[in-house]
Amino acid sequence: MNTGELVDLGQQLRVDSVRAAAAAGSGHPTSSMSAADLMAVLLANHLRYDFGRPAHPGNDRFVLSKGHASPLLYSAFKAAGAIDDEELLTFRKLGSRLEGHPTPQRLPWVETATGSLGQGLPVGVGIALSGKRLDHTDYRVWVLCGDSELAEGSIWEAAEHAGHEHLDNLTVIVDVNRLGQRGPTRHGHDLDAYARRFRAFEWHTIEIDGHDVDAIDRAYGEALSTKGQPTAIIARTLKGKGVKAVEDREGQHGKPLPEAEEAVAELGGPRDLTVRVHAPEDSRALHSTGTGQTELPRYDKGDEIATRNAFGEALAAVGTARGDVVALDGEVGDSTRAEFFAKEHPERYFECYIAEQQMVAAAVGMAARGWVPFATTFAAFLTRAHDFVRMASISGSGINLVGSHAGVAIGQDGPSQMGLEDLAMMRAVHGSTVLYPCDANQAARLVAEMAGLEGIRYLRTSRGGSKVIYGPDEEFPVGGSKVLRSSDADRLTVVAAGVTVHEALAAADALGADGIPVRVIDLYSVKPVDRATLRAAAEETGCLVTVEDHRPEGGIGDAVLDAFTDGRPVPRLVRLAVTTMPGSATPAEELHAAGIDAESIEAAARMLVEQAIVP
Amino acid sequence: MNTGELVDLGQQLRVDSVRAAAAAGSGHPTSSMSAADLMAVLLANHLRYDFGRPAHPGNDRFVLSKGHASPLLYSAFKAAGAIDDEELLTFRKLGSRLEGHPTPQRLPWVETATGSLGQGLPVGVGIALSGKRLDHTDYRVWVLCGDSELAEGSIWEAAEHAGHEHLDNLTVIVDVNRLGQRGPTRHGHDLDAYARRFRAFEWHTIEIDGHDVDAIDRAYGEALSTKGQPTAIIARTLKGKGVKAVEDREGQHGKPLPEAEEAVAELGGPRDLTVRVHAPEDSRALHSTGTGQTELPRYDKGDEIATRNAFGEALAAVGTARGDVVALDGEVGDSTRAEFFAKEHPERYFECYIAEQQMVAAAVGMAARGWVPFATTFAAFLTRAHDFVRMASISGSGINLVGSHAGVAIGQDGPSQMGLEDLAMMRAVHGSTVLYPCDANQAARLVAEMAGLEGIRYLRTSRGGSKVIYGPDEEFPVGGSKVLRSSDADRLTVVAAGVTVHEALAAADALGADGIPVRVIDLYSVKPVDRATLRAAAEETGCLVTVEDHRPEGGIGDAVLDAFTDGRPVPRLVRLAVTTMPGSATPAEELHAAGIDAESIEAAARMLVEQAIVP
Repeated sequence: MNTGELVDLGQQLRVDSVRAAAAAGSGHPTSSMSAADLMAVLLANHLRYDFGRPAHPGNDRFVLSKGHASPLLYSAFKAAGAIDDEELLTFRKLGSRLEGHPTPQRLPWVETATGSLGQGLPVGVGIALSGKRLDHTDYRVWVLCGDSELAEGSIWEAAEHAGHEHLDNLTVIVDVNRLGQRGPTRHGHDLDAYARRFRAFEWHTIEIDGHDVDAIDRAYGEALSTKGQPTAIIARTLKGKGVKAVEDREGQHGKPLPEAEEAVAELGGPRDLTVRVHAPEDSRALHSTGTGQTELPRYDKGDEIATRNAFGEALAAVGTARGDVVALDGEVGDSTRAEFFAKEHPERYFECYIAEQQMVAAAVGMAARGWVPFATTFAAFLTRAHDFVRMASISGSGINLVGSHAGVAIGQDGPSQMGLEDLAMMRAVHGSTVLYPCDANQAARLVAEMAGLEGIRYLRTSRGGSKVIYGPDEEFPVGGSKVLRSSDADRLTVVAAGVTVHEALAAADALGADGIPVRVIDLYSVKPVDRATLRAAAEETGCLVTVEDHRPEGGIGDAVLDAFTDGRPVPRLVRLAVTTMPGSATPAEELHAAGIDAESIEAAARMLVEQAIVP
Repeated sequence: MNTGELVDLGQQLRVDSVRAAAAAGSGHPTSSMSAADLMAVLLANHLRYDFGRPAHPGNDRFVLSKGHASPLLYSAFKAAGAIDDEELLTFRKLGSRLEGHPTPQRLPWVETATGSLGQGLPVGVGIALSGKRLDHTDYRVWVLCGDSELAEGSIWEAAEHAGHEHLDNLTVIVDVNRLGQRGPTRHGHDLDAYARRFRAFEWHTIEIDGHDVDAIDRAYGEALSTKGQPTAIIARTLKGKGVKAVEDREGQHGKPLPEAEEAVAELGGPRDLTVRVHAPEDSRALHSTGTGQTELPRYDKGDEIATRNAFGEALAAVGTARGDVVALDGEVGDSTRAEFFAKEHPERYFECYIAEQQMVAAAVGMAARGWVPFATTFAAFLTRAHDFVRMASISGSGINLVGSHAGVAIGQDGPSQMGLEDLAMMRAVHGSTVLYPCDANQAARLVAEMAGLEGIRYLRTSRGGSKVIYGPDEEFPVGGSKVLRSSDADRLTVVAAGVTVHEALAAADALGADGIPVRVIDLYSVKPVDRATLRAAAEETGCLVTVEDHRPEGGIGDAVLDAFTDGRPVPRLVRLAVTTMPGSATPAEELHAAGIDAESIEAAARMLVEQAIVP
């Protein structure tokens, strides 16, 4: 398009943004209007995208990091012929695909859910990494950011990662409209403040007037021709541009324009331009193929193996079998054992350094391109990426997260390194799967299995060695459990997972020898839980004692409840969990101090039996 | 100290670090050795600190952001005479104050728990802000960072905040030893890569050889005399400096030296230097005083008021009564209503922009200086700061967090803005208090109450208006609940909180009119829960139906279990919660679609009664 047409298209995007928000009675038209010219030029002259084939491997990828500017995105979809005007006006209404913030669950042209600021660029980095190092396809990634969101540290994790990886297939466009939600940003219209920061992180930067379509056009061209560096285009814009009543004014964030009809008239009235977006050249998906045969490691019963080791070995094996599996780690691959994968599949391994938000975002970006990522760090440090996991579930993203060094059982390093809240965090993620193996063969099987699931999958691994109690051919279906001790005379059931399974077995053996038979369930699938087995145990033994190396809230104790919240009779329940703040000590001392070792389980069971609390 | 003495002191700190780790059989001596000279010069010549009076308001504040280098910190404490050699050798043992990573819970000279990297600097920014804007005392904040942790985005949130606030009382010392845990860092010994980044964020920077004690001494002096900017001293160091077997070598992270005795000899053998650390000048705490009279807002029954509004008004009132209350917000103060406090107490209000990690860290830093912070953003976005909240609880920090816009009840903005996991996250925090008011008078009372509690306090507020159902003089003790409907004939009990209380009341009234009396409990104190009332309801009605605007995991449904995990009989349980992925719709449509509105509660109750699942 030429200058005049581009100006017209920008106005159309503004008009449609105003109309959509007016029809909804809510939304962010002013944040859309500032970026309308930036979007118009991209759509008309630079984006290569086949709206009829959103999965086309050659498509450029556009990410609206400032997700609240969704009216602009949907107006662009309309201009591209992807949606019609009628649908545009369903914005923010029940059942509409056009949500307040865009999500790929509803719209095929959306790469990732946004709306939590500072996440679009990190995910874009993941997509650009896929393009460079996995897909080997020359699509370009365009990310439109707001200026306010540059305050998020995750933006600078992304900037660091992209600069270091020389992602010249990535362009970020910063819509510097100088106004945040509640007032001016830190840097106002000081474009160089932003440019300086990006340059420090090894980016090429271009500062422009974001309402000068020719300047925008030149900047995009310059970004396309810049080699060896990502490009940041820092554009001076006005929030609410084009409508005097709101332009560059405070107090106009996140609400429809006061007089929408007049505003539309002031913008030159409705237009009906259609953009023929350039289709990409034909290209093919280049997912590497694997052997198809998963040769999982096999461990001998009785050996002492850490589940993190089994995870690492299994992941390497799954990576051999499946060419679509990739791994990312937060600079602790020697601890998580992700390094085992790195050694065998270096081309599919991504060192993310100590930047857990970027690590998870990169996984989401890779998953969006069809890869099956495993992202690993200490369970404790996955809390750093909680908001990214939350948004990933809104995206419907299929990613595997692995948290090592779970619980007090890590010992001397102390509470900062102990994952004690991870089960609560991961269970509350919509559609998640939460797995917690207690031995090496089980861990290996679960790794293979989780790779094939949907949604967010979480595996919790342990630092220390634990005895192999299952044979290598045993199967561990997700949603299942294992009954490890059982008799008709069981007085109660101990429900354990991971490290506490071994403590429960020791307690059960001691109690059994003393004439108090107890059942032991290995609840390796924490979500979903094995309702049938828990219900049978409840009926047959009357009391469930849960024991977990985790806080009492949101973990295994709460998970068993899932089997009993349909109004059926509930068994008696006793919960053993970590209720104090641990310090440094040996693993055995820690388990004892927390009251979750065999001795504690045994004592609890005896108390229940002797005080006749259980029959 | 002069050059020779400083060199000697540095060697002593190395020797003691090696000895402490050797005695423990674990720990991070090599990461301590790289920073030993930096620490020696600070301790001997620049730090003003009275180890006998750690609460002295004039004390400088030192934060070991690279918390794993705890052997260095403890060796410095020994050199300063704060601990003796015997205690030094208890490092990482059960019951020792000298944990793997330092925490203020155990040691009075530690400002904040570290060990999750990238957190010390953000907390240091909070302390420096206190010094400048609250304490008005001229203490200096020194933060020792590793180079690896500069990959964390939280570091750049902190850099941005400190630069923008001109915190010239803050100095960060970066120990650039070029080796992370599993190998080289991104930038190796390229000091300028780090300096460039800090400079872009408006810091003064100094690049030095971190083993040249005179250069270090000069750099500290330059930092002290730099006005209007924080200073970053970027120091080139060698990991394991001084012991050939480990110096500048990979694979030597986080483990005792292979031959500790030889290493000590190579370092010149044990020394016993004592440093007389300069005491600060006498100064006084300058906490502003309040009126002492909390004049909470009072709302009329029947009015429609959003609990977020009541929160904002109550916080302003509490701020008038208590001079030690401060507020921080993540650029959404107009939404959270923190702006009500800002208007009345601008000198105690901190705009943190969209940087939730830094916001919580600043709160932790201020709490360390005796202030009572309230940090506010959308409940959904508090997940961004999860790791900071986790570490705050390890610190034993007393901070108030307020999450607004909870649940699907926000309506059109969609799932990215809906806090649906916040209760799970906050309940699992050790020692936390979790409050969720359903009306304005209750919200106001809880705000006043939470200000006086210990530990992490969380208040969940709602976007939309809700009917005032309590009088302004009603009391709401933490750990309590309110029984809103009750009779001897109740067939079941609905346990609700926040927005679902009103839905439960409507359902109860409809059911009651139809001859099905049900009890309604307002569980405003989600943690701790009111065990006595829940137990009485269980005994008297036999079935608890929980209904919450939250995911089914970790929220109110799980919280009630806390009353029943001591082996006593458990009532029948039914849980209504948000089990699907919401889209955009009106608040009423959202509550209905999620199955947590009055109609859904009524239907569930009828089903239970009609199918005789409850008596």
